[in-house]
Amino acid sequence: MATYTAPLRDMQFVLDELLELEHYADLDGFADAPRDVSTAILEEAGRLASGVLAPLNAVGDHLGCRLENAEVSTAPGFREAYRLYAEGGWTGLTASPAYGGQGLPHVLGIAVREIMTSANLAFSMFAGLSHGAANAIANGGTAAQKALFLPPMIAGRWTGTMNLTEPHCGTDLGLLRSRAHPQADGSYRISGTKIFISAGEHDLAENIIHLVLARLPDAPAGVKGISLFIVPKFLVNPDGSLGARNGVQCGSLEEKMGIHGNPTCVMNYDDATGYLLGEAHQGLKVMFVMMNSARLAVGVQGLSLASVAYQNAASYARDRLQGRAPGGAIAPERVADPIVAHPDVQRMLLSQRAFVEGGRALAYWAGLQVDLAHKHPDPEVRESANDLLGLLTPMIKAYCTDQGVESISLAMQCFGGHGYIREWGIEQLLRDARITPLYEGTNGVQAMDLVARKLKLNEGRALKRFMALVEDFCQEQGAQLGDCTVALQQALGDLKLATAYLLERSDPATSGAAAVDYLHLTALVAFGLQWARMALIADRHLADSDDSTGFYRAKRLTARFFFERILPQTAIHLQRVRAGAEVLSAFDPEQF
Amino acid sequence: MATYTAPLRDMQFVLDELLELEHYADLDGFADAPRDVSTAILEEAGRLASGVLAPLNAVGDHLGCRLENAEVSTAPGFREAYRLYAEGGWTGLTASPAYGGQGLPHVLGIAVREIMTSANLAFSMFAGLSHGAANAIANGGTAAQKALFLPPMIAGRWTGTMNLTEPHCGTDLGLLRSRAHPQADGSYRISGTKIFISAGEHDLAENIIHLVLARLPDAPAGVKGISLFIVPKFLVNPDGSLGARNGVQCGSLEEKMGIHGNPTCVMNYDDATGYLLGEAHQGLKVMFVMMNSARLAVGVQGLSLASVAYQNAASYARDRLQGRAPGGAIAPERVADPIVAHPDVQRMLLSQRAFVEGGRALAYWAGLQVDLAHKHPDPEVRESANDLLGLLTPMIKAYCTDQGVESISLAMQCFGGHGYIREWGIEQLLRDARITPLYEGTNGVQAMDLVARKLKLNEGRALKRFMALVEDFCQEQGAQLGDCTVALQQALGDLKLATAYLLERSDPATSGAAAVDYLHLTALVAFGLQWARMALIADRHLADSDDSTGFYRAKRLTARFFFERILPQTAIHLQRVRAGAEVLSAFDPEQF
Repeated sequence: MATYTAPLRDMQFVLDELLELEHYADLDGFADAPRDVSTAILEEAGRLASGVLAPLNAVGDHLGCRLENAEVSTAPGFREAYRLYAEGGWTGLTASPAYGGQGLPHVLGIAVREIMTSANLAFSMFAGLSHGAANAIANGGTAAQKALFLPPMIAGRWTGTMNLTEPHCGTDLGLLRSRAHPQADGSYRISGTKIFISAGEHDLAENIIHLVLARLPDAPAGVKGISLFIVPKFLVNPDGSLGARNGVQCGSLEEKMGIHGNPTCVMNYDDATGYLLGEAHQGLKVMFVMMNSARLAVGVQGLSLASVAYQNAASYARDRLQGRAPGGAIAPERVADPIVAHPDVQRMLLSQRAFVEGGRALAYWAGLQVDLAHKHPDPEVRESANDLLGLLTPMIKAYCTDQGVESISLAMQCFGGHGYIREWGIEQLLRDARITPLYEGTNGVQAMDLVARKLKLNEGRALKRFMALVEDFCQEQGAQLGDCTVALQQALGDLKLATAYLLERSDPATSGAAAVDYLHLTALVAFGLQWARMALIADRHLADSDDSTGFYRAKRLTARFFFERILPQTAIHLQRVRAGAEVLSAFDPEQF
Repeated sequence: MATYTAPLRDMQFVLDELLELEHYADLDGFADAPRDVSTAILEEAGRLASGVLAPLNAVGDHLGCRLENAEVSTAPGFREAYRLYAEGGWTGLTASPAYGGQGLPHVLGIAVREIMTSANLAFSMFAGLSHGAANAIANGGTAAQKALFLPPMIAGRWTGTMNLTEPHCGTDLGLLRSRAHPQADGSYRISGTKIFISAGEHDLAENIIHLVLARLPDAPAGVKGISLFIVPKFLVNPDGSLGARNGVQCGSLEEKMGIHGNPTCVMNYDDATGYLLGEAHQGLKVMFVMMNSARLAVGVQGLSLASVAYQNAASYARDRLQGRAPGGAIAPERVADPIVAHPDVQRMLLSQRAFVEGGRALAYWAGLQVDLAHKHPDPEVRESANDLLGLLTPMIKAYCTDQGVESISLAMQCFGGHGYIREWGIEQLLRDARITPLYEGTNGVQAMDLVARKLKLNEGRALKRFMALVEDFCQEQGAQLGDCTVALQQALGDLKLATAYLLERSDPATSGAAAVDYLHLTALVAFGLQWARMALIADRHLADSDDSTGFYRAKRLTARFFFERILPQTAIHLQRVRAGAEVLSAFDPEQF
């Protein structure tokens, strides 16, 4: 079974040394989590994750969820774990104190989320979706809706879901058919079938608050006619107590590749009572607030599973004896050397490490932008943070899930044939992780969001700001990093050329043909900036001989590995961007 | 459920037009399979695969194998399917007529193997392992052993296995502990535990012939003290009839990520009677003949599963309606266009196609080298074919399984969230395929075979020959291919630089650090040569307006896609090779 220990040292490095959170003490919530408090919170999260959630991960995978009489039971242990999770205050960590939350920084919330997800993705999805649904109500709800729904959701007594997909309608929400009919009392009757609803029905909470996209009778066709509704599993009386069972039921559970611990439900709405959330026909606006936060969270899922897979692969590689090190035995007293002595195993471990640590730095940086965008007093800072977040969200969702799967696959490879066997737990991580490039918008959709929307929004302001950040870093501090800076500048040059190529060509075929490669190129540069910043910090400590644990030396070597072997991939992405759409367009679809 | 139709047109293109098998009619067996016969054989294989094996693929996955009282039952339908398979003569297709085989060319055997594997990997492994075991007996056995064991194995009445791995001993066979004690009658008593034995016990055949590595009492330590033994499940009387049950039992079945239709057994040998195969202490020599053939077959597995995944993804992409094509609606009468109209979906499909068709060309070419190496009258041709095969085997095993997994993952991505759901069958293909980079020597081991052995063998003769083939092609015929040839020459230049770098540095750390990237670089050039040859043929037909079905146009465009977007990856592999081992060696293993 895979085991998990929260990588607290590296998390603290990112929060305290890289992002220097202490500089933001003026922002709401930051003063409540100075360094010692955030450390204590992460330690506590790590204890729950290692002690309770991680041991349940294989249980959820093996036993899955069961549907009987329209009720779903989760695997043994999940109820108790969720109770501990809610009681520990984890469901309300970053939520508004006005509704019972702790109001702590989002960046800290991301770190906690990483820990919980590493231990048990299927479990973490219950809380993750609730968090998103509560956010949507907080952003788009009326005062009465907030007062009624938020406190129990934030306390973890109720959970939430997102209901977008229908059998014939995934990416293309314009095809949505679910209907909402207004009632005399101001409520609506919702009917339709939704699929792929994670945590749509379960036994962890007293109530489930579904957020459901549907069309009003007078709705315009397409995406401009979609409204969002709050549809509780149990109707809620004005005093917050539970009323009658609503007309929504789980029709079946999907059999799937992984995340068996979380029920993926077909949800049937049959004249269910719902309440409009936000304005009529403007449902996607509210939903997209939720989706953006969910997309960032999914990117963190890719990173989280890669982190736990890496830990287990490294541990296996230190224990497994096989063959001898290239330079001669390093454990001559044993029958063979540990396989960590083999350069190819070192290469695989460092590849994982470069992704996991770089991804952590990038995701937490994005988390900080959420805080800045919401809480900073200076509108220019808020705008800049929002711009950056708009770019980073699709990048992190797509790159960190594509590379997350790849990284876990490398972890499996470190185990040899044993990696394919259930008992080691790696194969579950790979199966679980494979959902992440698919849900919350496939990675192709993320890439189109970046290329077709974000790239051109406000005359490309966001990307210009991002590239200027990298450029400024190279000019102001890069000289100290030598070859690493040369590599970063080269990658930035590739990004500039790719960007210019796309901005000169406005046809959507070229954008579509280039999208995924452009996203990977951009993400590599973003990783490069984080690695360069981290390398500088490491160099300072090494220059001061302040490295008693070897942490900074390892960080510096991993940075070099990244610049030597990972970042130069920007060149092939540029080449593919420039290949354009000619071959794709010329290929007869019937020949596929 | 995934469906399968053998891609006969493309297979015939490779056999007849690319490899021009008719030129080899003088070689043993080739005259028995002229174009019309080989076409009929592939059609018949396709019927069995689509009609019988493919529908059993999900059954094997869901129901798996069961162990009761040391007997293993396969999933319902497997026995009957195996009976049909054996009765159809597929177990003896390429085996020697002296023992009941049909003696057909190995290259045709590879094509048939691709078809059967695409339909059902777990099923195909039973016959694949038997084929390998029979080959080993044919190569290393005494006349009596061949006469006794080969006819029923070739007829499919008995199957075979390979027993190498032990719990503490995988790649490092020197650690092997199983023991063999000589008996007065010339036989041996074998004791030990073997793990990961595919098809180690089952109900498809009357007998199972295990080939088992073990040590004799006087064996030198390490790999020079390993002998190979024939250990039948039922002892065999001199007349070929079955005798007593031998002392070998399946102790348990592994729970694993995929290939559930094939039992992965722990095999316990307890004073089992065995017979020395080949010479004492020389077991690895015979085993490696079997392993090399198995490695080529595993490479074909990666390709086969990618082929069926591609078919299903293409079919889904033509059916699924979502969004509109970038240039405006192509199906304005429908609610949306098929997703095959989206450039990113086209990109994913062409990436798969470039791999599958290029891999098919390369694997069949390697299959032809097997025939040439065994059957050609000219010793120089045999030597050259052997050289090439030595290079191609690790390349195809590792690259075609790494890329096979990647290609199936792209196929899943074409399905969006539906790809994660069991009913579509894609997730099974991905789980099944993930064993292929692990077994028969991990891909890292293949890369070390290439870099540490094959590269330097006979002063690098094999690689020089391979590079000369590419060079000559570019000079003699490349002018007609324009940019494609420029790309191929660039890739060859990268290979030369990487080769020179490695030949100048003899330290094993550098070889190990570079191995996997060097293998991928080499394989890309090998794919490039095949794609260039195929593009030339396509151009000839297009120039003659001989393309009524659009086959050659599609082939030519796929070639261009490969040269524009896939082949240029050689640059990053060269860069990584040149990064050397410095960072890897400097990293403290305790820091992982």
